[in-house]
Amino acid sequence: LVPRMRRFGTTIFAEMSQLATRTGAVNLGQGFPDTDGPALIKDAAERAIATGDGGANQYPPGRGVPALREAVAEHQRTRYGLELDAETQVIATVGATEAIAASVLALCAPGDEVVTFEPYYDSYTAMFALAGAEHRTCTLRAPTYAIDEDELRAAFSPRTRVVLLNTPHNPTGKVFTRAELQLVADLAREFDAVVVTDEVYEHLTFDGAEHVPMASLPGMAERTLTIGSAGKSFSLTGWKVGWLSGPAELVQAALTVKQYLTFSGGGPFQLAVAEGLRHGGDFLAELRTDLDRRRHLLVDGLRSAGFEAWLPQGTYFAVADAAPLGWTDATELCWKLPELCGVVAIPVSAFHDDPAANASLLRFAFCKDDAVVTEGVERLQRLR
Amino acid sequence: LVPRMRRFGTTIFAEMSQLATRTGAVNLGQGFPDTDGPALIKDAAERAIATGDGGANQYPPGRGVPALREAVAEHQRTRYGLELDAETQVIATVGATEAIAASVLALCAPGDEVVTFEPYYDSYTAMFALAGAEHRTCTLRAPTYAIDEDELRAAFSPRTRVVLLNTPHNPTGKVFTRAELQLVADLAREFDAVVVTDEVYEHLTFDGAEHVPMASLPGMAERTLTIGSAGKSFSLTGWKVGWLSGPAELVQAALTVKQYLTFSGGGPFQLAVAEGLRHGGDFLAELRTDLDRRRHLLVDGLRSAGFEAWLPQGTYFAVADAAPLGWTDATELCWKLPELCGVVAIPVSAFHDDPAANASLLRFAFCKDDAVVTEGVERLQRLR
Ligand SMILES: CSCCC(=O)C(=O)O
Ligand SMILES: CSCCC(=O)C(=O)O
Repeated sequence: LVPRMRRFGTTIFAEMSQLATRTGAVNLGQGFPDTDGPALIKDAAERAIATGDGGANQYPPGRGVPALREAVAEHQRTRYGLELDAETQVIATVGATEAIAASVLALCAPGDEVVTFEPYYDSYTAMFALAGAEHRTCTLRAPTYAIDEDELRAAFSPRTRVVLLNTPHNPTGKVFTRAELQLVADLAREFDAVVVTDEVYEHLTFDGAEHVPMASLPGMAERTLTIGSAGKSFSLTGWKVGWLSGPAELVQAALTVKQYLTFSGGGPFQLAVAEGLRHGGDFLAELRTDLDRRRHLLVDGLRSAGFEAWLPQGTYFAVADAAPLGWTDATELCWKLPELCGVVAIPVSAFHDDPAANASLLRFAFCKDDAVVTEGVERLQRLR
Repeated sequence: LVPRMRRFGTTIFAEMSQLATRTGAVNLGQGFPDTDGPALIKDAAERAIATGDGGANQYPPGRGVPALREAVAEHQRTRYGLELDAETQVIATVGATEAIAASVLALCAPGDEVVTFEPYYDSYTAMFALAGAEHRTCTLRAPTYAIDEDELRAAFSPRTRVVLLNTPHNPTGKVFTRAELQLVADLAREFDAVVVTDEVYEHLTFDGAEHVPMASLPGMAERTLTIGSAGKSFSLTGWKVGWLSGPAELVQAALTVKQYLTFSGGGPFQLAVAEGLRHGGDFLAELRTDLDRRRHLLVDGLRSAGFEAWLPQGTYFAVADAAPLGWTDATELCWKLPELCGVVAIPVSAFHDDPAANASLLRFAFCKDDAVVTEGVERLQRLR
């Protein structure tokens, strides 16, 4: 393994799901639902595979199938008022992960700097390392995750090439406000940086919190690459259908790299997801209602188990502090959790450079069936 | 776009397929069949999607679904006598392209050198550039594509980290003999290099030519990463299911990068391809018979159209020389071909560093229906 990648082991999500499988624990770790997305979408995929119409089972175009690109453009227009040319400003990717990889590898060279908030999703920093770019961060601290403006400004420099933002934010569940995004936008413009914005949880917000796309801020459409995904919105994480949109030139740069990472992916699934984007509104409304209920189930349960826990405004993750239970090292706790009480969770420190940061926090996923969430929190009562 | 990627535009395959779509030309360019693979496999995918059994529609494990890894190990054992532990020595990838990307990015750092034969597949050199490695080549010349041993040895140095080999070879159709592979193996051992071997056309050989896996040579299993793919073998190129196998340590290195490129891909397709590997023997035999017939159709047709053309021993590509028709620049010819006679082909120079190398050669795909191949060669008669 090349030196720059040596500090990366197996992703925490894979490790923890393996642990769940091995021990039979309730998996509240990796963020995938245990009920699949709507028949509307699954039927469309089955039909595309069965008929092969339009070459559905052969290489899709490198940019992605036109139907998906058009559906993404229409979605961004009708939902956010963003205008995109489906031909030159949208590409399909193998999940958001490939969109992140392609964007970072296309834009960042050795010597460049990249800014994210911390905690951050693990693939971000792995791709910065692969690109040879230097990762600067601004830490968000529980429970408010407010932005320290001075710390944010200090993360920027004339070498800042990319700001990689995630809203709604995994693992904290924070939904960045327009004012907070404006802070980032102002700095991105001042330092002439591109913003790559991972908005895969765009549909998963609660309590009236509004998802604001970075590209919708004044003057930002021209310097923002926006990443979306069907996996989280339509409960089909295994299909790995994502997309990237933005100014044609930046999209082309990402495509130049992307075409050599996978060329293309999941042709029949791209067609089916286009259907979902056009006609999946009812499913999204239902999913949000279900998740809202489970969010309360989980957080109430965590509290009654003795954790300090906070209701997230977005995503399907909630963070809890194990300190009140006498655990100061959540990583240690997460590895013991299956044995202690038959549950798997993710330590928030896995999203940090410094394993001591937010050391006693755990992330729990509530995209599981009510019965699973309930079983999970009941088991956690045994921790006391 | 970062400087190291600026010399890469859109892949020739995407460009030429766009050209075919735009002009309505017969597409003998990009290598995908126009008849889909067997119902056996498609039915299995539809079933996995419909039932979602075992979480088929949610994230597969980062390594790939166990059924696929086991089927690959069994395939390599029964077909080639290669022993692989499905748990640690096989991973699933998003097509061969991702396997190539992950291997190169995991193994090659700036300052390292990489050896391939030339012509080479375009993603190889793009990934070397992204990794910052230096690409050294040994040129194969039509029509024999014999290895110049001195040239091959001269491509190696103490800095050689990886040899990336493709057998059967795209675009030439050459099937490397055991003796030729032994030459490469000896040099790889002498210079302590890893061999990454792209064997996606392993099932597509003719005239009794035998595919010899690099890993089957004495002492090579411990330094070889072998890449396979369902797209070419089972005529389902749009599913992008590939795999990588070899010594656990090298596979783990590639996985470390791969997990951040896409995490995983096409869960239901992985399950279906496992069925194909176990029970798809009849389809493979039939495909080979069909391709053999089309190979003759194509090459006979090219000859009667005035090309010098050679029967390939493997892959579903044939190379032809346009010089006898008065065309010395095949790239120019390929761009004009739709207009001149309604056909799309790929210039072999797209597989070369030096656009002047093999400048008058074109590659034609014969993985198309008999009627399409026949129509294509009939149209080519108009070139005279
Ligand atoms: C790609 S595996 C991780 C899934 C996920 O987004 C999460 O659990 O945070
Ligand atoms: C991934 S697109 C190229 C397909 C192919 O292998 C070829 O045409 O050579």
